[in-house]
Amino acid sequence: MPDRPEPRRRGRPRGANPADTRARILEAATTEFGERGYEAASIRSIARRADVDPALVHHYFDDKAALVAEVVAVPLRPDRIVGGALDGPLDELGTRLLRAVLAAWDSPAVRPAATAAVRTAIGHGPVARMLREFVRREIMLRLASRLGDAPDAEVRAELAASQVVGVIMVRYVLALEPLASLDEDALIARVAPVLQWHLTGVGPILDSTASQEHYSSHDE
Amino acid sequence: MPDRPEPRRRGRPRGANPADTRARILEAATTEFGERGYEAASIRSIARRADVDPALVHHYFDDKAALVAEVVAVPLRPDRIVGGALDGPLDELGTRLLRAVLAAWDSPAVRPAATAAVRTAIGHGPVARMLREFVRREIMLRLASRLGDAPDAEVRAELAASQVVGVIMVRYVLALEPLASLDEDALIARVAPVLQWHLTGVGPILDSTASQEHYSSHDE
Repeated sequence: MPDRPEPRRRGRPRGANPADTRARILEAATTEFGERGYEAASIRSIARRADVDPALVHHYFDDKAALVAEVVAVPLRPDRIVGGALDGPLDELGTRLLRAVLAAWDSPAVRPAATAAVRTAIGHGPVARMLREFVRREIMLRLASRLGDAPDAEVRAELAASQVVGVIMVRYVLALEPLASLDEDALIARVAPVLQWHLTGVGPILDSTASQEHYSSHDE
Repeated sequence: MPDRPEPRRRGRPRGANPADTRARILEAATTEFGERGYEAASIRSIARRADVDPALVHHYFDDKAALVAEVVAVPLRPDRIVGGALDGPLDELGTRLLRAVLAAWDSPAVRPAATAAVRTAIGHGPVARMLREFVRREIMLRLASRLGDAPDAEVRAELAASQVVGVIMVRYVLALEPLASLDEDALIARVAPVLQWHLTGVGPILDSTASQEHYSSHDE
């Protein structure tokens, strides 16, 4: 992720009120994302639309993803949550990813806005399209790239994401019990191996023999 | 599931137009579900509200779940999809469940309405509450009961459902590639073992050693 550059005075229109300038950039970003989508929009095209220097956009917003978070007003950076989880051994990626997602959603400050963003993402209209492109670019492809030269890296990344999305839907958005209040470690013990299996094809299947015994009795 | 009873003439108000009667029952069901929720509402309470004999409600609608499908106008009976998948060996439940869900959602006649129902379910308001209660009662608990005396049957059923929900969200609602157009058998090969593991703690982790080899190289 690009570091936030030092503010460059030359970028700021003489005498403009910073709050107004920031608002103008956000408005331009909203329109640009809406008309061209997340992929096609760029800091440069947003700056052009706001009639400011691109450096000024970087002065207020770290990157394109930061603009998305502002546009949908979610105090959450899913791209960074995933990005942060990528560091570390690949065989523990599932656990790191899930822990990071649960930590974010368990925050009362985040959940309502994040839930609203989910509603928007599955809705119609330009913002929905922007969010889907954002998710694909900043989450799915980023996750897939961590899987290296796996031929089916994108499929695996998206399947892992689908399990994460499902947990978010059932535990937070629909808030169905018992998952809504299931202890976090218990949830991680159940779901992290699934993510790991989706991601790398490796997953410890805990005492499967015991369970086999336990359940097969019901089939006779 | 109760069988549809023979129509009982005495139930129908004299001279009432069947279409009007059916519409009146649906209207009463919508209000009853909205005010009392899916759990508390009953064929009897809906009949009372519509001022008809309960037998008449059964004459037009098989059961309470059928009324939900009509209220949200979805040509789909998730409770029956799950109910049908429950028959058969427990160690193949994951595959049967996933095949049934994919078959339903892959139908062009179903997808738009089902997607709309998902939007409604995660929305606010009485219909959302009704749908969540419906999902918990007719899907989660039904699935859990098939797991017999497993102490954590409800958790397992909901975790399996969360993976199904995630696949529905990514493949059909968000329609993200590559999952949106992934071959059905390939999808089942990846996801069914996960469902099975959630449900019974048993899941074949396919050539995990090979994958381990393949991926561990990226960690050195």
